[in-house]
Amino acid sequence: MDNLHIDQHISQQFNSDLEHLRTHLLELGGMVEAQVVDAVKAIETADGNLAERVLQTEQEVDRREIALDRECTLILARRQPAASDLRLVLMVTKTTHDLERMGDEADKIAKMAIAINEDGGASPRGYVELRHIATNVIKMVNACLDAFARYDVAQAIKVVRDDALVDMEYRTALRELITYMMEDPRSITRVMNILWALRALERIGDHARNIAENVIYMVHGLDVRHIPIAEIENRLAAQIKNL
Amino acid sequence: MDNLHIDQHISQQFNSDLEHLRTHLLELGGMVEAQVVDAVKAIETADGNLAERVLQTEQEVDRREIALDRECTLILARRQPAASDLRLVLMVTKTTHDLERMGDEADKIAKMAIAINEDGGASPRGYVELRHIATNVIKMVNACLDAFARYDVAQAIKVVRDDALVDMEYRTALRELITYMMEDPRSITRVMNILWALRALERIGDHARNIAENVIYMVHGLDVRHIPIAEIENRLAAQIKNL
Repeated sequence: MDNLHIDQHISQQFNSDLEHLRTHLLELGGMVEAQVVDAVKAIETADGNLAERVLQTEQEVDRREIALDRECTLILARRQPAASDLRLVLMVTKTTHDLERMGDEADKIAKMAIAINEDGGASPRGYVELRHIATNVIKMVNACLDAFARYDVAQAIKVVRDDALVDMEYRTALRELITYMMEDPRSITRVMNILWALRALERIGDHARNIAENVIYMVHGLDVRHIPIAEIENRLAAQIKNL
Repeated sequence: MDNLHIDQHISQQFNSDLEHLRTHLLELGGMVEAQVVDAVKAIETADGNLAERVLQTEQEVDRREIALDRECTLILARRQPAASDLRLVLMVTKTTHDLERMGDEADKIAKMAIAINEDGGASPRGYVELRHIATNVIKMVNACLDAFARYDVAQAIKVVRDDALVDMEYRTALRELITYMMEDPRSITRVMNILWALRALERIGDHARNIAENVIYMVHGLDVRHIPIAEIENRLAAQIKNL
């Protein structure tokens, strides 16, 4: 091969490395999303078997987290990516970690489902709140992965905004659960199970928000962490105007 | 300058970049460590003013997180580090994030201190458990930063081991707090404040463990996440034997 062809070959190889990275991240994302959906279903129906299946996915998620991180390190060492390619690789490293933590939180929900199941079924209280918040969080998980797949910044911003809503709903639900416990102290153990599951859902929402912020960074090179949502939109608008 | 001198100059510049990175990470670490120590003191003494000071540090921690991340990205783009230099940069990216999350958890403890203070002082229950776990977690935070500063893998392994102990103590404390709530339902709100603070401490311990694992990765290039402690020691021993 002459130099031109060697260059082309290297560049094709590089593109294919990045494409694999994207695919592997989306596969991990799909796996963790299914864990969250199943964990919520398991706690809603007090289904111990389904909860066990969620827990069995943990090792595979951990294995993929480590494999993806190694993939990123190899690309950084061998290909020395710059600009948007570098941002993609850094985004994948961070997002992998968020996905693994999401999986951990799904496991916690599954464990609460098993505890509820062994405890002889559902707590009478807190289920409405749980179902409502779960629906919103599952949407966020789906949307942040979709935003990554399509480089869709508008959808990423929506996830950031939805996270603020979920945090508010979570705080309201918490107050209600504490009231239930005070009214009926015998229910404390059972209500605590629901409370921990809610807490895990709220954390999953936080990770979805992190991923959405990573998408914005990847697409626009703008670090939007710790910035209020209105300010994020202003900065993105200014950046797009300057293109 | 001739080529040799240009090379030396670039290499000196690179070393100085890496040295700055290390210093900046340790500065952020020291700041977050102080946040944790002060937050615990604030909750133990129901000191609202001290808690407010902890909360005021948040913005500076966030600012430094973003600055450190930008520093890492620039080094990756300009210097294209390899081998142990690359591992240092990746370690710093991850550890920065863990430190920022630690700071967030310290903020939660400070907020509980403020709530307890406004609530007219301490809950009679849960303080012994809190103080005990706090002492261990603060030691872990100090030790993981020390392990980073000295490339001290033995100390890093100790942090990983201590985290398992703290998790166990946390679960025991949780059961006791739930018993207190059942015995005295009027104390539920106050005991919940202690419970959230304990939860935040347990999370701080997790982040210290993550940082310790990052130190092991940085020094030995070995990814020890999700691996039992005995297995970590075996693998490190095998690696050192093969040197």
